[in-house]
Amino acid sequence: MRTSPLLTDLYELTMLAGYLQEGMADTPAVFDLYFRHNPFEGGYAIFAGLQPALESLEGLRFHETEIDYLRSLGLFKPVFLDFLRNFRFCGRVIAPPEGTVVFAHEPLLTVSGSLAETQLVETLLLNSINFQTLVATKAARICYAAGDAEVIEFGLRRAQGPDGGVSASRAACIGGARGTSNVLAGMQYDLPVRGTHAHSWVQSFDDELTAFRAYADAFPESTVLLVDTYDTLKSGVPNAITVARELKQHGHSLRGIRLDSGDLAYLSREARVMLDAAGFPEVRILASNEIDEAVITSIRDEGGRVDIYGVGTKLATASGLGGVALGGVYKLVAIDGQPKMKITSDLAKATLPGCKKVLRAVDEQGGFIQDLVCLEKEWPSGGDTVFDPTNPLRRTVLPNLVDLIDLRMVVMDGGHITMESESIETMARRCRDELALLPRGCRRFVNPHRYKVSISHQLTQLRGRLMQTAAAPKEAT
Amino acid sequence: MRTSPLLTDLYELTMLAGYLQEGMADTPAVFDLYFRHNPFEGGYAIFAGLQPALESLEGLRFHETEIDYLRSLGLFKPVFLDFLRNFRFCGRVIAPPEGTVVFAHEPLLTVSGSLAETQLVETLLLNSINFQTLVATKAARICYAAGDAEVIEFGLRRAQGPDGGVSASRAACIGGARGTSNVLAGMQYDLPVRGTHAHSWVQSFDDELTAFRAYADAFPESTVLLVDTYDTLKSGVPNAITVARELKQHGHSLRGIRLDSGDLAYLSREARVMLDAAGFPEVRILASNEIDEAVITSIRDEGGRVDIYGVGTKLATASGLGGVALGGVYKLVAIDGQPKMKITSDLAKATLPGCKKVLRAVDEQGGFIQDLVCLEKEWPSGGDTVFDPTNPLRRTVLPNLVDLIDLRMVVMDGGHITMESESIETMARRCRDELALLPRGCRRFVNPHRYKVSISHQLTQLRGRLMQTAAAPKEAT
Repeated sequence: MRTSPLLTDLYELTMLAGYLQEGMADTPAVFDLYFRHNPFEGGYAIFAGLQPALESLEGLRFHETEIDYLRSLGLFKPVFLDFLRNFRFCGRVIAPPEGTVVFAHEPLLTVSGSLAETQLVETLLLNSINFQTLVATKAARICYAAGDAEVIEFGLRRAQGPDGGVSASRAACIGGARGTSNVLAGMQYDLPVRGTHAHSWVQSFDDELTAFRAYADAFPESTVLLVDTYDTLKSGVPNAITVARELKQHGHSLRGIRLDSGDLAYLSREARVMLDAAGFPEVRILASNEIDEAVITSIRDEGGRVDIYGVGTKLATASGLGGVALGGVYKLVAIDGQPKMKITSDLAKATLPGCKKVLRAVDEQGGFIQDLVCLEKEWPSGGDTVFDPTNPLRRTVLPNLVDLIDLRMVVMDGGHITMESESIETMARRCRDELALLPRGCRRFVNPHRYKVSISHQLTQLRGRLMQTAAAPKEAT
Repeated sequence: MRTSPLLTDLYELTMLAGYLQEGMADTPAVFDLYFRHNPFEGGYAIFAGLQPALESLEGLRFHETEIDYLRSLGLFKPVFLDFLRNFRFCGRVIAPPEGTVVFAHEPLLTVSGSLAETQLVETLLLNSINFQTLVATKAARICYAAGDAEVIEFGLRRAQGPDGGVSASRAACIGGARGTSNVLAGMQYDLPVRGTHAHSWVQSFDDELTAFRAYADAFPESTVLLVDTYDTLKSGVPNAITVARELKQHGHSLRGIRLDSGDLAYLSREARVMLDAAGFPEVRILASNEIDEAVITSIRDEGGRVDIYGVGTKLATASGLGGVALGGVYKLVAIDGQPKMKITSDLAKATLPGCKKVLRAVDEQGGFIQDLVCLEKEWPSGGDTVFDPTNPLRRTVLPNLVDLIDLRMVVMDGGHITMESESIETMARRCRDELALLPRGCRRFVNPHRYKVSISHQLTQLRGRLMQTAAAPKEAT
């Protein structure tokens, strides 16, 4: 599906026009995309949103109607509009594959090319990576809370716009959800689609049992019955058991029941007892209704017997601690071959200058020890002193005998996607495997262990040099 | 732009298949769309998202590739797929115009038609109305906090997906934002687009003053300079003043400066003093950086001198108290001419049965007194006893001498849009005018005055009757 190049902030276009006028449009530039805080005050993030972002870059073209619109704004000169008419993104992008576990302060995408093209794509890249990384991370957290129970994403109706829903479903499945209710996302990304029925189905019939029988008649192989329209334990579950018996007589079996209100811990325990006593231990219990990782944790603490969690709003909108947006930023780190940085009194907001790589130190079993951001041409080794990116006083020594893995690869070159296309299943498997290698304390919700991300000695020195140079900026005269 | 009919939860399709098999697809049905709590724990909501929703309904068609995908799921029979191939939405929709001030428990949309078509569109309608109403409400709150200062929406880069960004920009402008940075939204909905430049612009030049001069050279009529790349008061503002002088010499004027970090209250006061002292009282100060209604209130409390607020993440994702989603629901209220309701022990979650209208009691100046939900055929009058929808013990008497205004109209009939298309400006004006008529206490952020929404005596009686009937649902045998 085409992404309009106008899906951008106006200032990308005004800056582009400015660079063109100044003769700087072709100057080589490098930008890093990264975030400064792990989302949800958690210990990690799951990288997602890359493939859709790259497809948008590859197909970026200005249509004539879009040029006409820009002309109508009265801001731009004809030479700039001509430039846009022939615009193609021809740059290079380095990134980890989707599903990779990543952390604050690490460059995720590094985009290099002309100043014009690298600047123009800022908003487009941030929009895709910020949101999908946030939702994939939320899904990983919810799946962690759910333990062996399955998580299904149900959030389309409260998602932030149509595409908000579709990209949320995709990202949720990268982070660990086993399916979605969103049929369009299922078709576009080959995700398992799931669904039951609504209260309105039950209300449309004279009584609940008739409604259940009709649904079982229509979908004998995949019946999940919503049991809380009238009274869950007195009416819904007994009627579901009746239908389970009838399905059995015809060689089918009831797949599950769904609880959508009330005390889910209590109701799931009671429903489990009733189903087991009736001879249906295989009928699964699905719970929905404002579920998130905290609700799941509490249900499990109280001995709830939920097999599948249907998670809607709070997954598709990724709400939780720290707000509902990943604060990913896109910063200039080099221009015309010279490293650049944004100076600020707050080191946490200062950028890491120059072209860099991200290395992950792992032990013999592949377990993560720490990550290291260093200059592109360095190859650090055990024994090196490395530094906290936000506090140069905190330093540590890189252990000996660790393997250093380069987290990123060239995923686009000359404007063409060079990475092989992956299935969501592959990304989800990577996510699951990597999370198993992360120190366990990083996954807990309250005061998670802070995984160490350091910067190399050379990078620290480069940053110090640039800060000194900038300490005396040219003043206004 | 086409909305795929697969942008829906799977269960809408499985229920539809079930209704078809049961011979119930053509049964007349009525659904209400409403929400149970005003968003952000506030005193009101701004209705938005209607026009895009209606356009989606009008154009709803299943393409052959979509039918093929559904067939591939192995869930559906050929007769159902044929039914979808010929499906059109032919129902009727009643709703208020966008920009109307609305409240919890009031039916916003009432959708009538066949059970098949009214059920199928649930997710699509909720997706559009929930999100846009939420963002429009957030915008109205932020504009209230901003007082006479302008609010501009800057959130695309952290919005929830591409379309999340575009529909957020639209809704933000309905709720009071005066423009957006999102160029695509500007083109699609004829919204004013605005922008300045990024830190990367400044970093791309040898020094800040050169960067400012270049920008002013490119856009002499609309220069807004970002002054915090190095040091706001020592470098940014003095350099901006230098450029303001140079622009003046050439007959232009600097439009504004933008502060994007630090203590915005302090910096805006100091920058104002410096600009005024240099003879530039007309240069406006724009502030951005994690702005929301609370930040604006605090800046104003401290005497900040901000003329324009650029609000990004927290507007485009509508984050705030009560989460980031409007909990709008879509409930069956009548089938085959018979009123229906969902029974629950919590009256706040019980539905209001039957076909209804929403009346607004206003005083002679048009000021809102209270809203009343009653049956379609009733016409209540002063002196009538009316009831709290969630607590039948709370009753009140409708004052005499009030005007009763019907809030809604037929906006779609026979599947065709019957309302005239409105500009976003018209909707924004309606929003502004209506908010001025709302009791002032409803707009405050902390413990807002609870505007009274009542239900009529007849509606209360109908609900009581249906609850009694349902008290003894048929039990499983």
